[in-house]
Parts: sequence; structure tokens; C-alpha cells
Amino acid sequence: MITVELGKKIKQLRMKKGLSQEKFALEIGMDRTYFASVEAGKRNISICNIKKIADGLEISLSELFEGL
Amino acid sequence: MITVELGKKIKQLRMKKGLSQEKFALEIGMDRTYFASVEAGKRNISICNIKKIADGLEISLSELFEGL
Repeated sequence: MITVELGKKIKQLRMKKGLSQEKFALEIGMDRTYFASVEAGKRNISICNIKKIADGLEISLSELFEGL
Repeated sequence: MITVELGKKIKQLRMKKGLSQEKFALEIGMDRTYFASVEAGKRNISICNIKKIADGLEISLSELFEGL
């Protein structure tokens, strides 16, 4: 399911940047528990929040969805 | 804004396939007025609906977001 695949990809990219969930969520102005549930694949996340995450990861949306 | 850019891209790709809003929305099982508002950039659309649209356009999510 796309929510799970996207959550895994976000987690992988965040960890590559060496950021904790808490620090990254704070940096992009997103509630930590909401962000944690996105990474866990439990959220049918909206495009505006996906864009916020991609911007925080400093990648394009196209790069974020590569391979999904 | 990403909702507007995404809506324009979806419309462009749908028209390239020569499908009306009504026919495309029917094909992917999405409410026509909702789909029309997505193309108009008026919806903070969720990932599951974005995936439905990409599948209907027969492209990957990464291709859909190219250049946005």
C-alpha cells in the first residue's frame, strides 16, 4: 500500500540525514506524533504535508516518489 | 502552490490521453465534482487519491510529480 511504502521511504531518507523523528518534525513544523504515524504508514497523508516533508528532506517530490 | 501545480499537471496529462473529466473520473472510480476540484487546484488531495489518478493516467507517481 502506498501509505506504507511512502512512510518507509521518508524514514529511510530522514535517517540518512541523521535526524531524529522529533528533530525533523520540529524542523518542518509538523506534530511529532502525526509525523511518526506517517512514517509508520498509518496516514493517508495530504499533498501539502508531503511537500512539507520533501522540502524538509531537501529533495523534490519526484525524487521522494522514485521507485514507489 | 503545490495543489494548483498538481491539478494543472493532472489536467494536462488527462487531456493528452483525450479523456473528458467525466470519463476519467468514472474510469478511476472517483467522484466527478471532486476530481474537477482537484484539477482546479482546490483540494489538498491525499496520497491514496493521487495514486488512483497516477494509475489511471498509467504513469508512476515520480513521473506525475516531475517538474513540480
